[in-house]
Amino acid sequence: MIGAMTAQTSPHDAPDVSGLSIAILGGTGDQGRGLARRFALAGHDVILGSRSAQRAQDAADGLGADLPVRGLANADAAAAADVVIAAVPWDGHRDLLASLREVLAGKIVVDCVNPLGFDKQGAYALPVEEGSAAQQAAAVLPDSRVVAAFHHVSAVVLLDPEVAEVDLDVLVLGDDRAAADTVRALAARIPGVRGIFGGRLRNAHQVEALTANLISVNRRYKTHAGIRITHV
Amino acid sequence: MIGAMTAQTSPHDAPDVSGLSIAILGGTGDQGRGLARRFALAGHDVILGSRSAQRAQDAADGLGADLPVRGLANADAAAAADVVIAAVPWDGHRDLLASLREVLAGKIVVDCVNPLGFDKQGAYALPVEEGSAAQQAAAVLPDSRVVAAFHHVSAVVLLDPEVAEVDLDVLVLGDDRAAADTVRALAARIPGVRGIFGGRLRNAHQVEALTANLISVNRRYKTHAGIRITHV
Repeated sequence: MIGAMTAQTSPHDAPDVSGLSIAILGGTGDQGRGLARRFALAGHDVILGSRSAQRAQDAADGLGADLPVRGLANADAAAAADVVIAAVPWDGHRDLLASLREVLAGKIVVDCVNPLGFDKQGAYALPVEEGSAAQQAAAVLPDSRVVAAFHHVSAVVLLDPEVAEVDLDVLVLGDDRAAADTVRALAARIPGVRGIFGGRLRNAHQVEALTANLISVNRRYKTHAGIRITHV
Repeated sequence: MIGAMTAQTSPHDAPDVSGLSIAILGGTGDQGRGLARRFALAGHDVILGSRSAQRAQDAADGLGADLPVRGLANADAAAAADVVIAAVPWDGHRDLLASLREVLAGKIVVDCVNPLGFDKQGAYALPVEEGSAAQQAAAVLPDSRVVAAFHHVSAVVLLDPEVAEVDLDVLVLGDDRAAADTVRALAARIPGVRGIFGGRLRNAHQVEALTANLISVNRRYKTHAGIRITHV
């Protein structure tokens, strides 16, 4: 009976992603560098993308010569990797992705962009014509497998060499189940992190926007808040 | 120095709410009954409200004769309590609250309503003209102190006598800081639960809508998911 049980599938089952290379568009920002550092520590080849290949390489060098991270122009980074993470500013998100439509065709594109505005009362969610940044990505990249994830990672925590395990669940959303499962597995490559399937892209807006609430938590409690999903 | 430290305030500080009575509008539903049960177990006088006083009393009786819960018509329940929780269906939310504007004047009104639609692909967030159910409540109750909270509680878990501690953080949102602190303290009356300040009412939409994602989690993992805020 125990042998039979091991053959069952679990909603936690995930593919082996250990050999995948990862490009991070907008990779010179804090979030991009933080993710790059953690994926490189997990053994992935990571390519930072930026408008300037030189700035991308400088950012890669800044993460430490011992880590397998290099820098290229965004289009070259996207072409070189198995999975592409979009960690670009919301301003320019649509145009950058649209410019990469051909090179991103067939690839898993992970959107982790939070469309937020800021005023003296803090952060708030911006309206998005397509519903969410992830749905905008899916609209301008019809030939890519768009997944939404990594919205709530704290760049400060990811970049902190004192933090060995990251206390966070990454909600992974997508209409392509196999692509979402791949991204769940990638999230779990960061020690302490679980990738939890959180629904279809039509429910991405509130996951992106929840970052505004976490910023409110950070202000009130002077911390770098994340979320865990209980009972999973 | 230790004596001096005890005089400092902490973002976790909260008022003593042990003597507050609580009305739950729409209290015959699963979420209302679940909250009623937990607050009554914590020693609060609880009044279930419903359109029919008889159905409210029947629901109160169903929670057990040993618990301090009674049932009244919605307006009478609202008048009788210190704090009023709106756990009504989204359909009719605006009209019910507007009809109670005078009796709710000056009171803390806790909105825990999630405007969701359902189709064969699951749950999704409904658009709300005012931005969120909580903002709608604030618009129709200008003389009340509206707070948003308790969106992600699982009625199944709250009603389960086997569950002594509930593994959940309740995000509490409001523009009236003192009212939000009172509701944070009320959340913490449920064993296991923390009340975490999660921002202003303008950021309530995504907290309400996140319930759709938790429903997706529930489907995928066959569970009753909640959330915890890490690093707080």
